[in-house]
Amino acid sequence: MSNKDNAIQQFRDYRSKMNERILSADNKSIKRLYSLDTLTYEAGALSVKTKEMMGLVSSMVLRCDDCVKYHLEKCYEQGVTTDEIFEIFSVANLVGGTIVIPHTRRAVEYWDLLISEK
Amino acid sequence: MSNKDNAIQQFRDYRSKMNERILSADNKSIKRLYSLDTLTYEAGALSVKTKEMMGLVSSMVLRCDDCVKYHLEKCYEQGVTTDEIFEIFSVANLVGGTIVIPHTRRAVEYWDLLISEK
Amino acid sequence: MSNKDNAIQQFRDYRSKMNERILSADNKSIKRLYSLDTLTYEAGALSVKTKEMMGLVSSMVLRCDDCVKYHLEKCYEQGVTTDEIFEIFSVANLVGGTIVIPHTRRAVEYWDLLISEK
Amino acid sequence: MSNKDNAIQQFRDYRSKMNERILSADNKSIKRLYSLDTLTYEAGALSVKTKEMMGLVSSMVLRCDDCVKYHLEKCYEQGVTTDEIFEIFSVANLVGGTIVIPHTRRAVEYWDLLISEK
Amino acid sequence: MSNKDNAIQQFRDYRSKMNERILSADNKSIKRLYSLDTLTYEAGALSVKTKEMMGLVSSMVLRCDDCVKYHLEKCYEQGVTTDEIFEIFSVANLVGGTIVIPHTRRAVEYWDLLISEK
Amino acid sequence: MSNKDNAIQQFRDYRSKMNERILSADNKSIKRLYSLDTLTYEAGALSVKTKEMMGLVSSMVLRCDDCVKYHLEKCYEQGVTTDEIFEIFSVANLVGGTIVIPHTRRAVEYWDLLISEK
Repeated sequence: MSNKDNAIQQFRDYRSKMNERILSADNKSIKRLYSLDTLTYEAGALSVKTKEMMGLVSSMVLRCDDCVKYHLEKCYEQGVTTDEIFEIFSVANLVGGTIVIPHTRRAVEYWDLLISEK
Repeated sequence: MSNKDNAIQQFRDYRSKMNERILSADNKSIKRLYSLDTLTYEAGALSVKTKEMMGLVSSMVLRCDDCVKYHLEKCYEQGVTTDEIFEIFSVANLVGGTIVIPHTRRAVEYWDLLISEK
Repeated sequence: MSNKDNAIQQFRDYRSKMNERILSADNKSIKRLYSLDTLTYEAGALSVKTKEMMGLVSSMVLRCDDCVKYHLEKCYEQGVTTDEIFEIFSVANLVGGTIVIPHTRRAVEYWDLLISEK
Repeated sequence: MSNKDNAIQQFRDYRSKMNERILSADNKSIKRLYSLDTLTYEAGALSVKTKEMMGLVSSMVLRCDDCVKYHLEKCYEQGVTTDEIFEIFSVANLVGGTIVIPHTRRAVEYWDLLISEK
Repeated sequence: MSNKDNAIQQFRDYRSKMNERILSADNKSIKRLYSLDTLTYEAGALSVKTKEMMGLVSSMVLRCDDCVKYHLEKCYEQGVTTDEIFEIFSVANLVGGTIVIPHTRRAVEYWDLLISEK
Repeated sequence: MSNKDNAIQQFRDYRSKMNERILSADNKSIKRLYSLDTLTYEAGALSVKTKEMMGLVSSMVLRCDDCVKYHLEKCYEQGVTTDEIFEIFSVANLVGGTIVIPHTRRAVEYWDLLISEK
């Protein structure tokens, strides 16, 4: 397994290991938040693709690297193109300011990993 | 003119009066930021509608009421439906938490004004 | 009705009017977030009082005036004393910095209204 | 007294009335935070003017209108010019993004009031 | 020494090494902030336990991993149970939104380390 | 090359590698934001030194470690002294609260590396 795969795989493994641990605590409120998370991104008046792009831009302006990675994966699955990704980043950097740039660096790096993973 | 129109009109008037004042200061950096703002929401790989929806969701999670109002107006112009607006709000409230609820109240009120303005 | 009662009553009226409006939109995700909100503050390993104090301190550091007002009402109902309120404010101002001070001013004003309402 | 003076005076009156109320609660931690606030902006390796400009830019990017007003008053007292103020705003809008623009509108309005007050 | 102890020990060592370095700079304002930090969490109208839980929930919604770790240690010392910790996390995730989830993962991991350290 | 140089060099290398990658995407909005970034910190009514100090304090209160590192380098180039740096940190910690302390630790560590690099 290459380094690139490792970076993606490590993120996924840690995320699912800890999610399992969190859900095992059997806190009703947290469990419902997790299922609400799933529900909210389902297709409705807006497509899954549009919702995931909105999840991404929100994560960018709130500067949460792990949330960004997660939504990048989802956007990738939904067929968002690299040009579209950069336009999402442009909105996030404009609205959120240059403070978003370091997160954009890590986001672009992760996006390129996702592309090359294939 | 009804109260409802007043609320919308007051927001627009104050916004354009102060924007003019700001641009009159002739600060090069601020002027370029304003034109970058225009550029960023233009159609590209993503449509204006999608970009405005992303501007809206970003403004919601960052909890900026005036930015929310502005993007609600733009979304309205782009034909975003009420069902779509509520799905955008659902993403914003999920990602940003209940702290976004008071902003959602004001956003829904403004959206209803925009609808009734017509 | 005095001015003081008005300030409290206006907040409550607007809040419940808009909550009704939001729930009437029948967005499943938002409705579940609202019921999750109720669930989360119910007594469990921690008492309602402790949870409401945590809701208050969180609202203070995130600087959401309406959320602060709401949790002040709940804290008041739970018998939180003025001395305890100021200790919650002291934690919020320390953790969140002087940027929290203007919100503390409005919070203290609202707390005093709640006390005097009785 | 003109409307303009009223806007400035109202801000100052509310601020000092509520500060007095807060300090009257005799919470040791909050009182020390207030005196730390005074201490921190005193001249040291950096001048009062430079520190107040830093207080202003910080308040802008954190989007606290009342904090912005307060530091605008202090900057005015320290002889900061309108050109300098706009450069501070340009840094704040760049770093914090367009989300800062609505706060810039209100800040410019208040700055113009301070100028015209004289 | 196991890996687990290392993670805790490294955090503590870096924290105390850098705190010493910061205090050695002899900046009066920073030194007073540090002592204000100590003062604010002392028992008063509220117990140390309650204050530490409020420090924790505040750190969660403000998404500061190191602050979270610190308050987790303090909560552990104060006898906060795992069920209580998850209820604190549930409030933080509700108020702050799903953006808090990645920080919750790291917080739960650290909490489990603290438990197993014994 | 020592470990210390590595920490500085790694930051610089990653930063410039990813900036190149980002600019290679040829997104007009992002490219203009980058050049606006350069323009905004140029000397005008305020000196480069003052602007960089404002960039630093803004980055501190917004808690962006990479932005802090970048502005620390620029401040160092502009001849900002260690005493001045700590006064900037004192403003940031006061305004932004103790949540800024962990970022201050990393900032001081990086500042010391910059000093020792020479």
